[in-house]
Amino acid sequence: MADQSAIEEGLSFAPQFGADGLVTAVVTDAKSGDVLMVAHMNEDALRRTIESGEAWYYSRSRKKLWKKGESSGHVQRVVELRVDCDQDALWLKVEQLGPGACHTGRRSCFYRAVPLGQKGAVTLEFRDGDKTFDPKAVYGKS
Amino acid sequence: MADQSAIEEGLSFAPQFGADGLVTAVVTDAKSGDVLMVAHMNEDALRRTIESGEAWYYSRSRKKLWKKGESSGHVQRVVELRVDCDQDALWLKVEQLGPGACHTGRRSCFYRAVPLGQKGAVTLEFRDGDKTFDPKAVYGKS
Repeated sequence: MADQSAIEEGLSFAPQFGADGLVTAVVTDAKSGDVLMVAHMNEDALRRTIESGEAWYYSRSRKKLWKKGESSGHVQRVVELRVDCDQDALWLKVEQLGPGACHTGRRSCFYRAVPLGQKGAVTLEFRDGDKTFDPKAVYGKS
Repeated sequence: MADQSAIEEGLSFAPQFGADGLVTAVVTDAKSGDVLMVAHMNEDALRRTIESGEAWYYSRSRKKLWKKGESSGHVQRVVELRVDCDQDALWLKVEQLGPGACHTGRRSCFYRAVPLGQKGAVTLEFRDGDKTFDPKAVYGKS
């Protein structure tokens, strides 16, 4: 492992990929500041993102590299990319092209709130839950 | 695994902890919208956060439950808690008490930008990199 002080205070970009070869990527809307999604990048996805200025990720479920918007056209232009103190998480401020980032047809993946102050089973509440596009039409499958 | 449609469209809170027993928690400043940190919660940390309205996490490096601010006093009051489509990530909008969230002495952990459009080795640039507190004074060690 690299020296902690160099990782935290240095200017060498040394992303700390986990045992699974991935770093966490938090994606926010550059205008609204809302969190759009949380995704993961492997080294290849990160390199392509830096070189192109458009967001690439690694899908853990599909086990493959993917460019955001490759199916939907909902590309993410990266306005700013930041790395955190221990260099194991990235923050992408993006211009989200098209009506949304979420595969369920919504602008953000975070469309439900967890009410606070409860004990036991928790019932969610929709927030900004309206669909902004039809995922069946966009992705061609349900 | 629970039914995907129920996880994505239902109102039952069913957080999908990973093989390590954790979900990813993205923490933003409720006022500025800036991402302050990325952390992880186990079931106990999540339950305590929901019940108390103050943020608890699980430290992967220290392998223990911790309340944010327990050493520094820099407690996070949760203004809103949201869950994402597949319920494996959480978004906490918080009121960050004290001068900052990052153990390096800064408001946010994301104080360096990764310039885009480069190939090969990447040199970071400080952004909002000024320290807002002295971590040695706050945590009592370097």
